[in-house]
Amino acid sequence: METHFQTELEELKENLLTMAALVEEVIGDAVQSLVKRNSDLARKTFELEERINGLEIAIDEMCLKLLALRQPMAVDLRFVTSAMKITTDLERMGDQAVNIAERAISLNQEPQLKPYIDISGMAEITQSMVKDVLDAFVNQDSKLARSVCERDDLVDRLNDQVFRELLTYMNSDMQAITRSIHLMIVCRCLERIGDHATNIAEDVIFMLDARVIKHHADVEMDKANINLR
Amino acid sequence: METHFQTELEELKENLLTMAALVEEVIGDAVQSLVKRNSDLARKTFELEERINGLEIAIDEMCLKLLALRQPMAVDLRFVTSAMKITTDLERMGDQAVNIAERAISLNQEPQLKPYIDISGMAEITQSMVKDVLDAFVNQDSKLARSVCERDDLVDRLNDQVFRELLTYMNSDMQAITRSIHLMIVCRCLERIGDHATNIAEDVIFMLDARVIKHHADVEMDKANINLR
Repeated sequence: METHFQTELEELKENLLTMAALVEEVIGDAVQSLVKRNSDLARKTFELEERINGLEIAIDEMCLKLLALRQPMAVDLRFVTSAMKITTDLERMGDQAVNIAERAISLNQEPQLKPYIDISGMAEITQSMVKDVLDAFVNQDSKLARSVCERDDLVDRLNDQVFRELLTYMNSDMQAITRSIHLMIVCRCLERIGDHATNIAEDVIFMLDARVIKHHADVEMDKANINLR
Repeated sequence: METHFQTELEELKENLLTMAALVEEVIGDAVQSLVKRNSDLARKTFELEERINGLEIAIDEMCLKLLALRQPMAVDLRFVTSAMKITTDLERMGDQAVNIAERAISLNQEPQLKPYIDISGMAEITQSMVKDVLDAFVNQDSKLARSVCERDDLVDRLNDQVFRELLTYMNSDMQAITRSIHLMIVCRCLERIGDHATNIAEDVIFMLDARVIKHHADVEMDKANINLR
């Protein structure tokens, strides 16, 4: 029974990693569809999102079965309930990527406002955050999870920088307003992807350290209260 | 034991309703701080958000204990795991309200761009969505949950309308650009609050009907597969 449960947990981890890899891919495709002005690539994200949505439902069902049939305790219980929260975040990252792709399709029909170097940079950081936070989760690596939280500040700073730059474009050229707003929304989507990764990282750290770093509380909680075994 | 479990479930429901009421309040205060140009009210939202964050952690712990000690099955299992997802959505609505309050503090320092009638309207709808979706959850009312999903279209339409109106302001007056962007972000925050309420509504419908309406699939799933008992 214990062995069987371990096998199921491994299967759950693999599915989560597959889902995260798809999310990484959809972020990459969405941003590349903008950077390379390739609307076919943008449309490819819609199919990827379908697969991500399907995986969310499948993983949720898998977790419910694990809870019902195996009745895991303590660390395992927290792992399975965290997995259910993580799928929600991953699915919403997929939604954000599709939002980016939709903006790309609009922007690709007009002359390019500026080279999208910073946006590519933001995308690369968020992709690394998605990959690392899932690795942190399945390998129980709180140090890696903390590095994901730190990278979020970088994404926020890049977002502020691009935002200010686009504001300058808008102020100097009326023609640039609509395109600038599309690009602001793209950056905001990437920033939100970073936020989702950070949410997962906080859950991972909480799970591993049984410590509430969420909401910057960083207060050690009564461990006896948390260890349910 | 069954009675004890029922008491604990009731307590969980009450805590969720308390959390939802605080979220309703923080949305109201955030938008009123903008509409009434009252930055003290905006700062009050920061305290409310702290309380919401505290409740998220407390409810999560309560759910973990219920899962570990009572090992609920089928409907009850789905109820407790849904509660854990719902607290996450409620907490993020609180974050969005604080974003609105922060924008209000900036906007209140400048002349008012336009009367904020539509924004008040959007806020009222999202508040009703938060209230009703939690009522739908605790009272197992899938009809009410569906009405919440429908109201989300209304929020999206109002958002598009204000967005276009603000774009017109920006195009006709350079001085209006920064304030217009602040207001666009306020509307986007309200739209996201609506999205969170819709996410909860979809979970409620899924839980009650064991049917995946999420991702517009609306396909009856194999009920034998879902009923875990």
